Amino acid sequence: MPSDLQHFVDRIRAGDVRSLARAISTIEDNRPESRELLKSLFNFTGRAQVIGLTGAPGAGKSTLVDQLAREYRRQERTVGIIAVDPTSPYTGGAILGDRIRMQSHHADAGIYIRSMATRGNLGGLARATTDAATVLDAAGKDIVLIETVGVGQDEIDIVRLADVTVVILVPGMGDDVQTIKAGIMEIADIFVINKSDREGADRVEREIRSMQSLAIRSDKWTPPIIKTVASEGRGITELAAAIVNYEQFLQQKDLLLKKKISSWRERLIEMLRDALLERLLGERLPEEEIARLAADIAEHRRDPYSLVEEIVGSFGGNIHHGDTETRRQEKVRID
Amino acid sequence: MPSDLQHFVDRIRAGDVRSLARAISTIEDNRPESRELLKSLFNFTGRAQVIGLTGAPGAGKSTLVDQLAREYRRQERTVGIIAVDPTSPYTGGAILGDRIRMQSHHADAGIYIRSMATRGNLGGLARATTDAATVLDAAGKDIVLIETVGVGQDEIDIVRLADVTVVILVPGMGDDVQTIKAGIMEIADIFVINKSDREGADRVEREIRSMQSLAIRSDKWTPPIIKTVASEGRGITELAAAIVNYEQFLQQKDLLLKKKISSWRERLIEMLRDALLERLLGERLPEEEIARLAADIAEHRRDPYSLVEEIVGSFGGNIHHGDTETRRQEKVRID
Repeated sequence: MPSDLQHFVDRIRAGDVRSLARAISTIEDNRPESRELLKSLFNFTGRAQVIGLTGAPGAGKSTLVDQLAREYRRQERTVGIIAVDPTSPYTGGAILGDRIRMQSHHADAGIYIRSMATRGNLGGLARATTDAATVLDAAGKDIVLIETVGVGQDEIDIVRLADVTVVILVPGMGDDVQTIKAGIMEIADIFVINKSDREGADRVEREIRSMQSLAIRSDKWTPPIIKTVASEGRGITELAAAIVNYEQFLQQKDLLLKKKISSWRERLIEMLRDALLERLLGERLPEEEIARLAADIAEHRRDPYSLVEEIVGSFGGNIHHGDTETRRQEKVRID
Repeated sequence: MPSDLQHFVDRIRAGDVRSLARAISTIEDNRPESRELLKSLFNFTGRAQVIGLTGAPGAGKSTLVDQLAREYRRQERTVGIIAVDPTSPYTGGAILGDRIRMQSHHADAGIYIRSMATRGNLGGLARATTDAATVLDAAGKDIVLIETVGVGQDEIDIVRLADVTVVILVPGMGDDVQTIKAGIMEIADIFVINKSDREGADRVEREIRSMQSLAIRSDKWTPPIIKTVASEGRGITELAAAIVNYEQFLQQKDLLLKKKISSWRERLIEMLRDALLERLLGERLPEEEIARLAADIAEHRRDPYSLVEEIVGSFGGNIHHGDTETRRQEKVRID
């Protein structure tokens, strides 16, 4: 490993805030050097507990995450927070305010907070977020909290990669429950009804219960429902306890590894998909060729379906398995 | 072309409702036969005007789309509607109600309505929606309206592929504007302030104007702001006129083809990405191999970053350009 990379890795592992920030920016921008960095950091990961928290806009996620982080700090565990903001830049003010509020932790070296924007980086957000979690894990954070708004497929993809998924609801959302995307309810390991001092908390609880009576999870776990008032710190200890409970359940049933394997299966496929495309575009389809083909399609000179078959068919077409083996061995020898 | 496929294509082109439904289901499920079907249909497309409409939950999109469809029918143009529902199954009732309401058109053979769910089909929704639009285009619909909730990256991907993008806002959303994802405001060719009889419509208009004063589009188009009360049919004629205006602008400036090329560029890349992965998984990485590799990563025996490099490096690695050419020619000869 080059000595400057080694130095960078050392600084990250020591939890140096500026190095963490630099590492995550490198990942967010998907810069080439991020891959070597992640290779080096991966060896030092696997210790952190990754908790994903998601819910509709206005469910009070930031406040809840804030309070949960404080709870973990009281338990003397270090915390990294990744807050994914799919918010329009035009309402950026409120979000900035949130972040500034959360920076109240900042004097505490045991908490590191990082916002990640969803600036239309097609499909790359889940990748960037999980890679950022890898950095925080390698930096020795005991807990990594990933906070997203549960409205898009991206956000589902992010939280389902966590060890524990917490779905946050609030009473009185009415039709706004529609803003929670299909599939979000199903991925909850724990439900939180935040702002539970509001009217309608019992109704939300009944709705979750009746939903649960319809669908039994394959692991037989029944997600508990925790009522919180995050703004007053109420219910946070109970939430932390519920997370411990679920963890113990996973460990007893030998499910934690199973869950991690299943997450990595999905991530691996996503990583392969991105890397294959990158290679195809880099080696075969320079920008001007893509533009030419797109023009052919737009002007109906070619149909895109046949074109894709042809391009993909000619890529990596006639390698025998033996050749691949040879190359792989060569590669190992060179390394 | 096999005669049953030919028959299917003929039925679709004749606008047969059952054939349309079957074709779109085939596409939604990404069944293998969908590709041959799309290849055949593509030759008959390019005539429809595709209009994407998006906005926050509760903005009254369905009602607006409904009214706009009626307006086009008054102009004796046929309409296909694709309604993308990212809604939780637990609130499916309301949505079903919506759809039933819209079926009021159903007696009119000039309107075809299809809901598409976002049942967590990773990344496939934009593909399925645009392919469904291809079917409706081939079926001779003059106008294809694509309606989505503007909350996720998926939804942005869908509407930006349209010829014209309409972003629907409502007064009094307050913080709920946050539910519109970053990037949505930027893709609007036309803004609609629906429910504009409510207090705050002028404020929303001022906000859009002040936003527009900050960012000038590269094509110099200033998206107009149309005020509607869709539930009473108010402002719909104005919206249809604004769409015509924008179309004429695109044609005058020779931008429509440019826009289509740019859409196809993105779609082509997405299609390549999916097809490459499909091929890699099919030829090299059977399910059990993926599972084994995921376990290796989860148990920290391998790092995923090196693994992906190795797999992708060995795929399509040592084919020379000449070989590719030969294969391509062979393929053409065989066909």
